[in-house]
Amino acid sequence: MKVVVIGGGSTYTPELIEGFFDIWDKVDSLEIVLMDIDENRLNIVYEFLKRMIHKVKAKIDLKKSTDLDKILPGADFIINQIRVGGNKARLLDETIPLEFNLLGQETTGPGGFANALRTIPVVYNIAKKVENYAPNSYFINFTNPSGIITEMLLNYTKVKAIGLCNVPINFQKFFADLAEVDMKEVFLDYFGLNHLSFVRRIFVRGEDRTSELLEKAKEKASDSEKKIIDYLKMFPNYYLRYYYFREEMVEELKHKPKRAEEVMKVEEDLLKLYQDPNLDTKPMELSKRGGALYSKAAVNLISHLYGLQEGFQIINVRNDGSILDLPQDSVVEIPVYVQKDRFHRYVIGGLPIEVRGLIQAVKVYERLTIEAAMEGSYKKALLALSQHPLISSLSLSEKLLNKLIEVNKGLFPELK
Amino acid sequence: MKVVVIGGGSTYTPELIEGFFDIWDKVDSLEIVLMDIDENRLNIVYEFLKRMIHKVKAKIDLKKSTDLDKILPGADFIINQIRVGGNKARLLDETIPLEFNLLGQETTGPGGFANALRTIPVVYNIAKKVENYAPNSYFINFTNPSGIITEMLLNYTKVKAIGLCNVPINFQKFFADLAEVDMKEVFLDYFGLNHLSFVRRIFVRGEDRTSELLEKAKEKASDSEKKIIDYLKMFPNYYLRYYYFREEMVEELKHKPKRAEEVMKVEEDLLKLYQDPNLDTKPMELSKRGGALYSKAAVNLISHLYGLQEGFQIINVRNDGSILDLPQDSVVEIPVYVQKDRFHRYVIGGLPIEVRGLIQAVKVYERLTIEAAMEGSYKKALLALSQHPLISSLSLSEKLLNKLIEVNKGLFPELK
Amino acid sequence: MKVVVIGGGSTYTPELIEGFFDIWDKVDSLEIVLMDIDENRLNIVYEFLKRMIHKVKAKIDLKKSTDLDKILPGADFIINQIRVGGNKARLLDETIPLEFNLLGQETTGPGGFANALRTIPVVYNIAKKVENYAPNSYFINFTNPSGIITEMLLNYTKVKAIGLCNVPINFQKFFADLAEVDMKEVFLDYFGLNHLSFVRRIFVRGEDRTSELLEKAKEKASDSEKKIIDYLKMFPNYYLRYYYFREEMVEELKHKPKRAEEVMKVEEDLLKLYQDPNLDTKPMELSKRGGALYSKAAVNLISHLYGLQEGFQIINVRNDGSILDLPQDSVVEIPVYVQKDRFHRYVIGGLPIEVRGLIQAVKVYERLTIEAAMEGSYKKALLALSQHPLISSLSLSEKLLNKLIEVNKGLFPELK
Amino acid sequence: MKVVVIGGGSTYTPELIEGFFDIWDKVDSLEIVLMDIDENRLNIVYEFLKRMIHKVKAKIDLKKSTDLDKILPGADFIINQIRVGGNKARLLDETIPLEFNLLGQETTGPGGFANALRTIPVVYNIAKKVENYAPNSYFINFTNPSGIITEMLLNYTKVKAIGLCNVPINFQKFFADLAEVDMKEVFLDYFGLNHLSFVRRIFVRGEDRTSELLEKAKEKASDSEKKIIDYLKMFPNYYLRYYYFREEMVEELKHKPKRAEEVMKVEEDLLKLYQDPNLDTKPMELSKRGGALYSKAAVNLISHLYGLQEGFQIINVRNDGSILDLPQDSVVEIPVYVQKDRFHRYVIGGLPIEVRGLIQAVKVYERLTIEAAMEGSYKKALLALSQHPLISSLSLSEKLLNKLIEVNKGLFPELK
Ligand SMILES: NC(=O)c1ccc[n+]([C@@H]2O[C@H](COP(=O)([O-])OP(=O)(O)OC[C@H]3O[C@@H](n4cnc5c(N)ncnc54)[C@H](O)[C@@H]3O)[C@@H](O)[C@H]2O)c1
Ligand SMILES: NC(=O)c1ccc[n+]([C@@H]2O[C@H](COP(=O)([O-])OP(=O)(O)OC[C@H]3O[C@@H](n4cnc5c(N)ncnc54)[C@H](O)[C@@H]3O)[C@@H](O)[C@H]2O)c1
Ligand SMILES: NC(=O)c1ccc[n+]([C@@H]2O[C@H](COP(=O)([O-])OP(=O)(O)OC[C@H]3O[C@@H](n4cnc5c(N)ncnc54)[C@H](O)[C@@H]3O)[C@@H](O)[C@H]2O)c1
Ligand SMILES: NC(=O)c1ccc[n+]([C@@H]2O[C@H](COP(=O)([O-])OP(=O)(O)OC[C@H]3O[C@@H](n4cnc5c(N)ncnc54)[C@H](O)[C@@H]3O)[C@@H](O)[C@H]2O)c1
Repeated sequence: MKVVVIGGGSTYTPELIEGFFDIWDKVDSLEIVLMDIDENRLNIVYEFLKRMIHKVKAKIDLKKSTDLDKILPGADFIINQIRVGGNKARLLDETIPLEFNLLGQETTGPGGFANALRTIPVVYNIAKKVENYAPNSYFINFTNPSGIITEMLLNYTKVKAIGLCNVPINFQKFFADLAEVDMKEVFLDYFGLNHLSFVRRIFVRGEDRTSELLEKAKEKASDSEKKIIDYLKMFPNYYLRYYYFREEMVEELKHKPKRAEEVMKVEEDLLKLYQDPNLDTKPMELSKRGGALYSKAAVNLISHLYGLQEGFQIINVRNDGSILDLPQDSVVEIPVYVQKDRFHRYVIGGLPIEVRGLIQAVKVYERLTIEAAMEGSYKKALLALSQHPLISSLSLSEKLLNKLIEVNKGLFPELK
Repeated sequence: MKVVVIGGGSTYTPELIEGFFDIWDKVDSLEIVLMDIDENRLNIVYEFLKRMIHKVKAKIDLKKSTDLDKILPGADFIINQIRVGGNKARLLDETIPLEFNLLGQETTGPGGFANALRTIPVVYNIAKKVENYAPNSYFINFTNPSGIITEMLLNYTKVKAIGLCNVPINFQKFFADLAEVDMKEVFLDYFGLNHLSFVRRIFVRGEDRTSELLEKAKEKASDSEKKIIDYLKMFPNYYLRYYYFREEMVEELKHKPKRAEEVMKVEEDLLKLYQDPNLDTKPMELSKRGGALYSKAAVNLISHLYGLQEGFQIINVRNDGSILDLPQDSVVEIPVYVQKDRFHRYVIGGLPIEVRGLIQAVKVYERLTIEAAMEGSYKKALLALSQHPLISSLSLSEKLLNKLIEVNKGLFPELK
Repeated sequence: MKVVVIGGGSTYTPELIEGFFDIWDKVDSLEIVLMDIDENRLNIVYEFLKRMIHKVKAKIDLKKSTDLDKILPGADFIINQIRVGGNKARLLDETIPLEFNLLGQETTGPGGFANALRTIPVVYNIAKKVENYAPNSYFINFTNPSGIITEMLLNYTKVKAIGLCNVPINFQKFFADLAEVDMKEVFLDYFGLNHLSFVRRIFVRGEDRTSELLEKAKEKASDSEKKIIDYLKMFPNYYLRYYYFREEMVEELKHKPKRAEEVMKVEEDLLKLYQDPNLDTKPMELSKRGGALYSKAAVNLISHLYGLQEGFQIINVRNDGSILDLPQDSVVEIPVYVQKDRFHRYVIGGLPIEVRGLIQAVKVYERLTIEAAMEGSYKKALLALSQHPLISSLSLSEKLLNKLIEVNKGLFPELK
Repeated sequence: MKVVVIGGGSTYTPELIEGFFDIWDKVDSLEIVLMDIDENRLNIVYEFLKRMIHKVKAKIDLKKSTDLDKILPGADFIINQIRVGGNKARLLDETIPLEFNLLGQETTGPGGFANALRTIPVVYNIAKKVENYAPNSYFINFTNPSGIITEMLLNYTKVKAIGLCNVPINFQKFFADLAEVDMKEVFLDYFGLNHLSFVRRIFVRGEDRTSELLEKAKEKASDSEKKIIDYLKMFPNYYLRYYYFREEMVEELKHKPKRAEEVMKVEEDLLKLYQDPNLDTKPMELSKRGGALYSKAAVNLISHLYGLQEGFQIINVRNDGSILDLPQDSVVEIPVYVQKDRFHRYVIGGLPIEVRGLIQAVKVYERLTIEAAMEGSYKKALLALSQHPLISSLSLSEKLLNKLIEVNKGLFPELK
C-alpha cells in the first residue's frame, strides 16, 4: 500500500501517521510519502516521524518530497490536507467578515467562502495531476471546506474523491460513550452537508434508542445545544450554532482571541518540540490543535477501501438520490456502507422540513461558490453569497465580496 | 352569475365592482353580494356603489349582508378580501419587527408571518362554510399573504381556491407599454411564489424579446432594481428589494411614515367622500390606496373560469410538477392557461440556481407557518421564522416570536 | 417564407400544397421547393402543381430540385415526408412478420421496427445537412415511424424537430362533429406516443363533456373500439387495436390484400392523372391514399410557428416532465400551446395505470430501436424487439431479426 | 421468541424447523406454534417434528393449533406459507393457460394471476388478525406470488410484511461456490421483482468480479441461460426463461408432467414417512419438494430482525426510491441491510433499459391484479392481464379471464 500525504508538513501529521500503526501489519507493505511545499516543516516533521516509527518498530517505509509529479505514480491513497495561504489567510477569514457583522470562521459563512475560493484552484490542479499519474487511487480530502472541495472534485475531475471530516466519528464516539458500548455498535442515522448535518436517530445494536440518548446528550450539552435538541429532536453538528445563534456567535467571536493566531502559536511550539532528537512519541501539546479522531477516520476509511474490513462510515459523497430534496450531483454527508469499490448509500429520503430550507439554501450557496471559482465569475460569487442564510442580502454581499477580493489579492482566482 | 365579496366593506370595493361593468352584459344575470362584519362601512360602500351602478346603467343586482351563511348558497364566485385585525394589526406588522432590526412589512418577513397567523384561522373558517354552502364555487383569494393563504386552502379544505395578486398584471402592462403593444400580446415566462417571483423571459406575439425589453425596463428602474436585473438577467418582483437590499430597506422603513397609518387616513377620507350623495363615480383619491389593476385581474379570472374567454393568466395554484425543485403540493405563482375547469400549468422546470436557494427557503418558511397556524404549534412557528432568509437565527426568532404573540393577543391562534 | 418539402415527389404533395392556398396571402412572400431523389416523379408532380397554383391565382413561387445542399439555405420550414425503400420495402414490413404470426404493419410492431432501421440513418443524414445549411429552420417530420424519428432527431441532432401525425387532427374533427361545433372549440386532453395514444377527456369550449361524447363516439365505433372505450373510459388511437386485438388482427392481415400493393396501384393511377395537361385541381382519386387532414395539420403548425396565429396543437415533442412516468428526453404526443418559439406543454401527470405498462414498454422498445440504428448494435435491436409487447420473447425476436436483416439487405444499417 | 407458522401442516415445515436448530440456543426461549386448517396434516407434521427436536436436544417449545386468533398474541414472527386451494388449484394454474397457448405456471403469467386472486383475500384476512393480535410482529411471507402478496400487505394492511423467496439465497450460494468462498463473502448487486430479477454485479469481499464469474456461470448454464447472459451481461432469475423463451416454454410445459401432480405424489409419500414413529430426522425424499435453502433464508432474516446478527439480505420490500423507474410504493426484490428495525435499502438507481420495459410492464400487471382482487373489479383484472407481457391482448385476456373465473369458482373473489 502506498499512501501520499499532501500537506504532509502539517504539525497534525504525527497524529495521522499514528493511525497507521494499527494496520501496517495487515497489509503486504506500507509506504507513506509526505509531500509539502514548505521544505523546512517537511524536514522537521519527517525526522520526528522517523523516530516515532522506529520506536514502535512499525514496518513503514516513510519518504518525503516536494515534487508531487514524482511521487504520485503507484499511489493507492492520496490524503489531501493542505491549507492554501496558511494560517495567515485563515486569520483573514476569521476577522474580515466580523467587520460586516458577519460570522468570521474558516469553514462556514463568508470565511468559508473565501477559503473555498483560495483552495479550489489549488486542489483542482493537484487533482489533475492525480488523474494523470495515479488515476486509480482514492483521493481522501480533509482540506476544508471539505464538502465544497469534494463536490468540485467529483464534478470537475475524474479522481475518486471522498470527503472526510472528524465530526461524524466524534459523534459516534460521543453516543457510544453515552450508551456505554463500543463505537462499532452504534449506527447514526445522520444526514446533511459537511458542517451542516444532523443526527436524526441513534441505533445501538440495531435498536432505536434515540429519545433516551438525546436526553442523556442534553445533560452534557451547552444551553444553546439543548435548545436545538428540544426544538428539532435531532442532534446538531457543532457548527450549527453559527446559524441558530447567529448574532450571539458574531458578538462572541468579535471579542475572542482568533483561532488562527492560537494555532500559529501552537504550531511554533510543536515544531520546536518535534526538533528535539529525543522526542519519539506524540507530545501532549498536539491535542491542543483539535482534530480529535481524524486519524482514526482516515485509517478506517482506508481499511474499508482496501478491503481490510467493511461497514458503514459517514462520509462526503455524491448524493445520487439518497436525499430527495437535493440535486443528484450534490455532495452530501451521509452513512455509506463501504467495502472496497462498493459504495452503498444510506437512503435519507426527504429532508425534515424543520431544516430543509436551511440545507437547501446552503447547498445552492455551495454550488454557486464552486462555479464562481471554476469559471472566475464575479456574478456567481455574488449570487452565492447573497443566498447564504447568514448573509441574505445582495448589497451586503457586494461590499463584502469586494473587500474579500481586496484582502485575498494573489490568493483568489480572478473574478470577472 | 352570483358573486360574493367577503370584506365587501373595503374602500377598495368600488374599484373591484367597476371591473364588472365590462362583463355584466355578457352573462345571463349578475348578482353581487357584499359581505362584511363592519356594518357601518358596509352600508356606506353599498350605498355609494348603488349610485355608481345606476349612473352607468349596468344591470347588476347589488346586495349586502353581514351573515355569510345566508348568502353563500348559489354563489359561483367568492372573492375574499378581508383584513383580519384591520389596519391596527397591520401597524404592528410594520413596526414590531423593526425593533429587532428586521423588515416591518405586512406580507413579507416577520410581519407577513404575523399576518398569516392572524388570517389563517379566520379564512379557514370561512372556507369551511363555503365547502358546505357553495361547494362548486371558485374561491378567489386576494387576502394577504395570498400565496400562504391559498396553500392553506388547497391543503386543508376542499374549496376550489385560486390566489390572486395584482403584481403580475401590472408587470404585463409594464412590458406591454415598453413594447408599445396591447397587454394581450405579451406573454411573461414568470415563476416563483407570491411576492417572490421573477420574469424570466418576455414574449411579444410569441417572439422572445427579453434582452431588449429588460434594457428598456432598466431605463425606468431604480438603481437597486437595475442592479438586480444586471445580475440576474431577470425582472424581479417589487418585493424582492426587501431581500436583496435587506439592511437598507430596514433602515429606510424605520424612518418612513408607516403605510398602515397612511391607509387609515386615506380610508377615513374615502369613507367621507363615499357618503356624499352626489358622488356616483370612483373618486381620484382611491388611486392613493394602491392595488392598481386588481379589479382587472379579478374580472379577467372570472371571465376565464366562466368561459367568457380563455387564455393565460398568472395565478397562485398548486405546483403539481410545474417547478421541479418545489414540492408538488406547494402553491406557486405561474402562468396557467385557464378555460373553465381546465387548468393547464406552464412548465417552469428547474429553478435557476441564481434564485433557487432563496425560493426554496421561503417555501419552507411558508409551509411551516401554515402548519404552525393550523396545529397551534409554537415549535413550528419558531422553525418557520428561523429558516426565513430575513431572519436566519433561532435565538432571534424566539425573541421575535414571543413579542409577536404578546402584541397579537386575541388575534393569534394559541401556540403550544 | 421558404418551405422545403423533402420527398416532394410523393403523390401526396398536391394535398399538402393545397393547404398553403389558405395562407400565401398572409405572409410576405412564399417560396416552396420540392426536393426528391426520384427525378421523374418530381417532374410530374411539379408540373401538375404549377397548374394547380395557376388555377387559383396563388402567389406561390414553386421550385424543384434533386440537390438538397443547394436549396436548404434560407429555409424557414423543412417538411420531411420521404419513404426509404419505397413501397417495395413497405411490403416487406407488411408480410415478413406475418410469417412469424406477428403483426405486419409499416409503423407498429416488427414492421415499424424495420421501417425505423431503414429510415433513421437517412433522416439523420438529412438532418445533419439541415443543421449545417438551415440551422434555424423548423423540421416538421411526417416520415413514419414519426415518434421514433423525432426522438432520434431531438437526441442526436440539433435540428428543431417536431413530429406530426394526422391522427390527432382527425380526432379533433371527429369530436367537433359529434359536438356539432367548430374544430377550434374542441380541446382534447390527449396523451401517449405516436400511434399509441389516448383521448382522456374532451372539452368543448372549456366544458368537460367526456362521458357524453364518448357515448356518442361509441355509436360510430366498431365493436372492438366500443370494447376498448368501455374498459378504459378513454378513446383509443386507431392503431391500438393492433395491441388490444393482437391475434385477431394478425389473422385478418394475413388474409387481406396488402396496403403497400394497393398504394402502388393508386400511385400509378395518380401519376398518370397528374400528367394530363388539362388537370389543374386535385383529383378525387387522391382521397384513396389516406392521410386525411394531414395538410391542415402541417399548415396549422407552420402558422403557429410563424406567428400567424397561436394555440394548442397535438404534436410530438420532448416530454420534459409532461408525462411523469416516462423519461424527460422521450418524445411524446401531447397538446402543446405553440406561439412561435414558445412551446408550452400540457401537463399530463402520471400515466393512468390502465395503460401505463403498455406505453412504458413501447417507449423502451422505441429508445432501444433508435440506439440500435445509431450504434449499429445487433444486441440492442434484439433487446428492443424482445421487449415489444407484441413480441415478448427473445428467441422469437432472434429469428425475426435475422430474417428482417436478410430481406432488408442494403437498406438496414450494419448491425454488429 | 415466539414464532407462528401459518400453513404449518406443509410437508416443508420440517425443513423450516431444522433452521431453528441453529439459533434456539442464542435466544432466551423459543416457542414455535404450527397453525393449519388441515388438522390431519398438522398432527402428522407436529408429531414428527417433536421427534426431530427431541433427537437433537433442542430447547424448542413446539405447539400446534387450528385457531389463529388464539395463538397470535405475543408472536414475534409470523411465517406465512399457506397454499390457498392446495395443489388441486395449482394444477389449474398449470393447465388452463396452456389451452390458450399461454404459460401454465403457479407464480408467473396467468397461473400466477389466478393464484394471486385466490390468495389475496385469504392472506388479507389473516393479516387483519395479525394487525389486531400481534401488531408488532414481523410478517414473513413465503406464500406465492410472494411479491404481489407483499405489495398487497404493505399497501392495504399495517402488518410489518417482508416477502421472502429462496432464489436470491440460492444465487448467493451458486456464486460463492463458483468463487470458492463462503456465502457471506459474496454480495450481489441484485434488482427487480420477485421471480423477475437480475444479478447485475457480483462482489467477492468487495471486489467486483462480475465478468469472471459470469463466464464461469455460463459453463454451468443451459443454452438458453447462456444466451440471456450473453445479451444482458447480467444473470437472470430462473423464471425469466418463461419470458425470454416464451413459445418454447409453453410448448415444453404442454408435454411435461405437471408439477402439481408430482408434488401431490411426493406429499403423499412424505406424509407416510413422517408417520413412521422411528423417523426422527429429515428424510431424503424431502429434497424432491424443491425450496432449497428456504429455511436458511427465513432463519437468517429472523436473526437479522431479532438482532442476533446484522447484514445484507435480498428481500421483498417497499421500493421507496431504490429503483427510480418504479413507483415508490411498489414492492421490489433488492438487497437490504437489516439490523432489527433498521432497514437500509441498496440504491439500484435507474433500471437498465435492456430490461426496463419488461419490469415496468409486469409491475403494472401486479398492481392492477392487487387492485382487482381487493376491489373485486373485473375491469381491472382484465386490464392487468392485457398488459402482462406474456399475454398482450385484450381479447385474449377476456377469454382467459372468463375461463379462470369459471374454473376457480368458490376460490376467486367475486369480480364485477
Ligand atoms: N476535516 C477534518 O477533520 C480536518 C481536521 C484537521 C484539518 N482539516 C483541514 O485540513 C487542512 C490542513 O489543516 P492543517 O491545520 O494541518 O494546516 P497546516 O497549515 O498546519 O498544514 C498544511 C500544510 O499544507 C502545506 N501546503 C499548503 N499548500 C500546499 C500545496 N499546494 N501542496 C502541498 N502542500 C501544501 C503547508 O505547507 C502546510 O505544511 C485544512 O483545510 C483544515 O481545515 C480538516
Ligand atoms: N393581492 C392584491 O392585489 C391585493 C390588492 C389589495 C388588497 N389585497 C389584500 O386584500 C386584503 C384586504 O385589503 P383592504 O385594504 O381592502 O382591507 P380593508 O381593511 O380596507 O378591508 C377589509 C374589510 O374586510 C372586513 N373584514 C375583516 N374581517 C372580516 C371577516 N371575518 N368577514 C368579513 N369581512 C371581514 C373589514 O371589516 C373590512 O371592511 C388584504 O389582505 C390586502 O393585503 C390584495
Ligand atoms: N404522419 C402522417 O400523417 C403521414 C401522412 C402521410 C404520410 N406519412 C408518412 O410520410 C412518409 C412518406 O409517405 P408517402 O406515402 O408520401 O411516400 P411516397 O413513397 O409516396 O413518397 C415519398 C417520396 O420520398 C422520396 N424519397 C425517398 N427517399 C428520399 C430521400 N432520401 N431524399 C428525398 N426524397 C426521398 C421518394 O422518391 C418519394 O417520391 C411515410 O413515412 C409515411 O408513413 C405520414
Ligand atoms: N418463496 C419460496 O422460497 C417458497 C418456497 C416454498 C414454498 N413457497 C410457497 O409457500 C406456499 C406454501 O407452499 P407448500 O408447498 O408448503 O404448500 P402445501 O400445500 O404443502 O402447504 C400449505 C399448507 O397451508 C395450509 N393452509 C391452506 N390455507 C390455509 C389457511 N387459510 N390457514 C392456515 N393454513 C392453511 C394447508 O392446509 C397446507 O397444509 C406456496 O405459496 C408456495 O409457492 C415459497
